[in-house]
Amino acid sequence: MELEIQTGERMDFIAGTKMPIIQSETVFSYSIDAILLGRFAHVPIQKGRLLDLCSGNGVVGLVLATRSKGHIAMVELQQRLHEMALRSVKGNGLEARVRAVRGDVRCLPDDLSGGRFDLVTCNPPYFPLREGVQRSENEHKALARHEIACTLEDVIRAGSFSLKHGGKLALVQRPERLAEMITLMRAYHLEPKRLQFVHPAKGKESNMVLLEGTKGGNAGLRTQAPLIVYTEEGAYTSEFQKVYLCQ
Amino acid sequence: MELEIQTGERMDFIAGTKMPIIQSETVFSYSIDAILLGRFAHVPIQKGRLLDLCSGNGVVGLVLATRSKGHIAMVELQQRLHEMALRSVKGNGLEARVRAVRGDVRCLPDDLSGGRFDLVTCNPPYFPLREGVQRSENEHKALARHEIACTLEDVIRAGSFSLKHGGKLALVQRPERLAEMITLMRAYHLEPKRLQFVHPAKGKESNMVLLEGTKGGNAGLRTQAPLIVYTEEGAYTSEFQKVYLCQ
Repeated sequence: MELEIQTGERMDFIAGTKMPIIQSETVFSYSIDAILLGRFAHVPIQKGRLLDLCSGNGVVGLVLATRSKGHIAMVELQQRLHEMALRSVKGNGLEARVRAVRGDVRCLPDDLSGGRFDLVTCNPPYFPLREGVQRSENEHKALARHEIACTLEDVIRAGSFSLKHGGKLALVQRPERLAEMITLMRAYHLEPKRLQFVHPAKGKESNMVLLEGTKGGNAGLRTQAPLIVYTEEGAYTSEFQKVYLCQ
Repeated sequence: MELEIQTGERMDFIAGTKMPIIQSETVFSYSIDAILLGRFAHVPIQKGRLLDLCSGNGVVGLVLATRSKGHIAMVELQQRLHEMALRSVKGNGLEARVRAVRGDVRCLPDDLSGGRFDLVTCNPPYFPLREGVQRSENEHKALARHEIACTLEDVIRAGSFSLKHGGKLALVQRPERLAEMITLMRAYHLEPKRLQFVHPAKGKESNMVLLEGTKGGNAGLRTQAPLIVYTEEGAYTSEFQKVYLCQ
């Protein structure tokens, strides 16, 4: 099994796995956020349908594939990133149960919507357009970072429509948008059930939040122990290594 | 200066202060929650109007009085607790700027409402009535713990009406109700701005959350470093001692 690498691309192993993935400095490479999301979500283990939205190079979907034997679909708008994901899925021999789709979260095809899924994940663009797009950014990165083609509401709406009753939506976001995220989830019948904050170091404000909601769930939110990334010496903490590197 | 103690009462010093307060095993004694709320809220320091709702024996208002030179009003429904608060305020010689009022959060007198306040705090009853009231509880404790006479929505509505534009509402709650709290605050034009979770020990889920919102504020929520109460040996952590005992 081998990955087809094109100019400007490289092969990395996904953190904590033996899975190769195609990355690119100029187009897309995953960040900690994506890995933590893939490990945070409650997955159906033996079978089920999983959907990753705004899937980029497919990193979240591939992490989910290490945790679930179910069928996984991943949807990405950008053709360039979609092609990278296709080749990474093929290179891992996962075509039978992992499907990379080029599509728009705002109008998903019928077979990806309509209340079929057990789990929907998304590592969406974090920044509202009002905060402005840096001119220096290339188009690929701008689309992945800013709400140009997909807002938080688009993601939550699509997630709710795709989930079956009792299915779960798991998101990663900046903590600044937590209130908005909770309000939107409840507006689309997703009850926030599980929350975890990531802090760069002890005593520091959080810079990342993971939230999972259940479609049609009852009220009642649990907040897990926080995840601290770095020790005072600048190394990964043991708790972070456990989750991120599976050590 | 001396406190008038009645049968079944005792005098304690408020954690981290030299302030005496009247407590009672059978009627009301404060918990960690109240102290953390009094230390968490952003207070106007030199002057201003502060209001504590569901004030119990007055502990939150008295902590605020150590941090602000402003005028503080505290509102409690139960006559027995209100009287304890009156005597503690008097015993601390604070009658000139701390006023204990007997009143109902659902219908505050005009001088405590109408957009006058810089800060409103509340350590409300935590438990919805559907979770049931233990028959063993006495009436005083049942009213302080369960939403018999005052719901979370009553508190947030009253807080919003009492605050001036830009004023802050600071609450302590169980994390289970965070989603509801955020939804209600936004419904009453209070934007959640600052969040802190309390965890009983490292690696444990949170069992307490502090949240502050600003009336008419812009979206954008910051999540402070979490507060861990106990070390593995069962002693207070140094960060907790700093906040709780001011050491």
